[in-house]
Amino acid sequence: MAIAASHETLTLDDQMRALGSRARAAAAVLAKASTAQKNDALLAAAASLRAQLPALLEANHQDVADARAKALDAALIDRLTIDEKRVAAMAKGLEEIAALADPVGRLDADWTRPNGLIIQRVRVPLGVIGIIYESRPNVTADAGGLCLKSGNAVILRGGSESARSSAAILACLSEGLESVGLPTAAIQSVPSQDRAAVGIMLRMDDAIDVIIPRGGKSLIERVSTESRIPVLKHLDGICHTYIHAAANLAKTRAVVVNAKMRRTGVCGATETLLIDRAVLATHLKPLLDDLITAGCAIRGDAEIQSLDSRVTAATEQDWSTEYLAPILSVRVVDGVEAAITHIGYYGSHHTEAIITEDVAAAEAFLAGIDSAIVMVNASTQFADGGEFGMGAEIGISTGKLHARGPVGVAELTSYKYLVRGNGQVRP
Amino acid sequence: MAIAASHETLTLDDQMRALGSRARAAAAVLAKASTAQKNDALLAAAASLRAQLPALLEANHQDVADARAKALDAALIDRLTIDEKRVAAMAKGLEEIAALADPVGRLDADWTRPNGLIIQRVRVPLGVIGIIYESRPNVTADAGGLCLKSGNAVILRGGSESARSSAAILACLSEGLESVGLPTAAIQSVPSQDRAAVGIMLRMDDAIDVIIPRGGKSLIERVSTESRIPVLKHLDGICHTYIHAAANLAKTRAVVVNAKMRRTGVCGATETLLIDRAVLATHLKPLLDDLITAGCAIRGDAEIQSLDSRVTAATEQDWSTEYLAPILSVRVVDGVEAAITHIGYYGSHHTEAIITEDVAAAEAFLAGIDSAIVMVNASTQFADGGEFGMGAEIGISTGKLHARGPVGVAELTSYKYLVRGNGQVRP
Repeated sequence: MAIAASHETLTLDDQMRALGSRARAAAAVLAKASTAQKNDALLAAAASLRAQLPALLEANHQDVADARAKALDAALIDRLTIDEKRVAAMAKGLEEIAALADPVGRLDADWTRPNGLIIQRVRVPLGVIGIIYESRPNVTADAGGLCLKSGNAVILRGGSESARSSAAILACLSEGLESVGLPTAAIQSVPSQDRAAVGIMLRMDDAIDVIIPRGGKSLIERVSTESRIPVLKHLDGICHTYIHAAANLAKTRAVVVNAKMRRTGVCGATETLLIDRAVLATHLKPLLDDLITAGCAIRGDAEIQSLDSRVTAATEQDWSTEYLAPILSVRVVDGVEAAITHIGYYGSHHTEAIITEDVAAAEAFLAGIDSAIVMVNASTQFADGGEFGMGAEIGISTGKLHARGPVGVAELTSYKYLVRGNGQVRP
Repeated sequence: MAIAASHETLTLDDQMRALGSRARAAAAVLAKASTAQKNDALLAAAASLRAQLPALLEANHQDVADARAKALDAALIDRLTIDEKRVAAMAKGLEEIAALADPVGRLDADWTRPNGLIIQRVRVPLGVIGIIYESRPNVTADAGGLCLKSGNAVILRGGSESARSSAAILACLSEGLESVGLPTAAIQSVPSQDRAAVGIMLRMDDAIDVIIPRGGKSLIERVSTESRIPVLKHLDGICHTYIHAAANLAKTRAVVVNAKMRRTGVCGATETLLIDRAVLATHLKPLLDDLITAGCAIRGDAEIQSLDSRVTAATEQDWSTEYLAPILSVRVVDGVEAAITHIGYYGSHHTEAIITEDVAAAEAFLAGIDSAIVMVNASTQFADGGEFGMGAEIGISTGKLHARGPVGVAELTSYKYLVRGNGQVRP
């Protein structure tokens, strides 16, 4: 990459420090950019992605060829590969971000104190966001677009496998920024694929305000352990659907097969089904029929196994496994409290659903579950910023601090208090 | 302490793990406690503080005697000492917390999606809060009360100097909890004054959801470096007041002397005065007269020094020093942008004020300053949750994530999404 070549006499530390300074300076400009300017940059970047399609596909072709030569696994190669459709989706994604309301400058609240001080709480950008992700090149476009709209500068560190693809996408984003006179340093990537760059990034607490890791458990654990910078975590989605004693069978069948099988690789997919003993006799068989017909493997507790020969044994490990695959663990529970206890112990605080016609049971579940999203009679696959009407998201936060659930442009902002007086002094 | 004695055969790790489990269990109970139950516990704790006055003073007397024997510094001994008035203030503080609105269960927003899903965002407690503080025993009552009201369990780790005083205060809080049938594990202190206990606490990410350090820079740096748990930082208040070219002299005099001298030991006290060159001739001398008369020492840049012989030289270090004392650094600046640049470089993102009658200058300052609180024509000493009308606070957050500015009961909560459907599946 050109940026690496131009810095070849500098140490990685120096390069990272320079990158951080440029990001900080760009953030100050971005914070004051108008909504129209940011939207125009997003639209120009989308146009550039479409115009540069051949270059993007060529860069990606090289990344994929390298990945194949290294015999990387098929799932990774699938995530890495972009085609015309995926490029179009990235461009459309940027246009959708342009269409979102600008969160910056929004008034959260205002009030006047008895002494006449007028206090306002207004949304401001976070500043500089560091995003560490793995092989999906589209994160470059999505994360770059969301940070730009929310007025933040961003430092991206994607996986080495997708380096050429990400650089080509970044060039389109830069073109969008340049077209409206915003600094290209608003969206930068780290100048090296060296793993040491991540370590340096996690200690740049002067330059970076928040780190968002997007990827597997080991990445997120490394980031949580090493980072001196606050982390917005996006952990596993070990999501549960609980079939209550008062569950309507038709709704149950529709919701469960969707929650598990619509897309098995998303974090909102149900991984464990809890079925109330009260409906075992009526609901279990049709549910398993639907799921198995749809291609799902079932791992059950001893009781479920004893009731259906198609079920294999679930181990203790299964209850805390995010399969991201057509596999479902199934357990019998006795009542709402038992379901809440199981979820509290094995879950990841992401999204859980109860299927019931009993309002009291539904309310007990909503109140008792300590997860970002709790649903009644709906598919856990609705756990998505877009489905919530919040627009594109950078992920679903499973932490409780700052943002919980879908993290969209509003969640990428902070606030400050503006206080207007007329000479007031404190007694 | 009884708790230490009963655990003397357990390792510190084991004791801390047990403490964490009790806190987690108590948090689940607290999260469901009614507003009335929490308020009754707070009022009973306040009554207990008043009833136990002799015991509290005796415990504190021993702490103070030990501190004197160790020749600890006078400021620390002052912070450590409680008297009848300070106990009454603690009790009143708990009663004021009882009078605050309960943030738990509050509906932030609700909307219905085109597919009929009803989405609500409701406030929930954070869970278990770890508070690490130094010698002020009143933090035990304040922090315990704020966490209780916000439905959180809390693990307190106060300074060893105040161990007996804090234990006596904690006994009153426990009495309050017991009187309404809430678990005393809702407010616990670590069972050892061993510094290692802090290290263990900072790694208990299963048991503790957020760490709040209250104390000096070295404590906060240790916590930020070591903690695996998200930290709500309360850093220095290097607050600035900027006298703009269009500052009214009478307002300026009233505000500046209050901002610096009302109480010099609070984080909202102004530490640096920036004076616009345009008003040097008219405003500097009366301001310095007022400040010096009030007992303030002045450290100025070369120009300020040359204009007034009572001014000593400010070093580079002075511009980034939180004196917490009757000392003020004073610098000449040329215009609003220069003031913003100085504050961005040397400040701590806490609270800054501009004094001006020029609306455009005021708005430029409000927009350009990246601090938790930005004021126009008011004393920086208003940087306080109570003065903002938010009630008691645990401190002023200088971070941008989760909470910025005053951290009161509302800021000690998170939220979750409740989604009610009728069998919806995602297309």
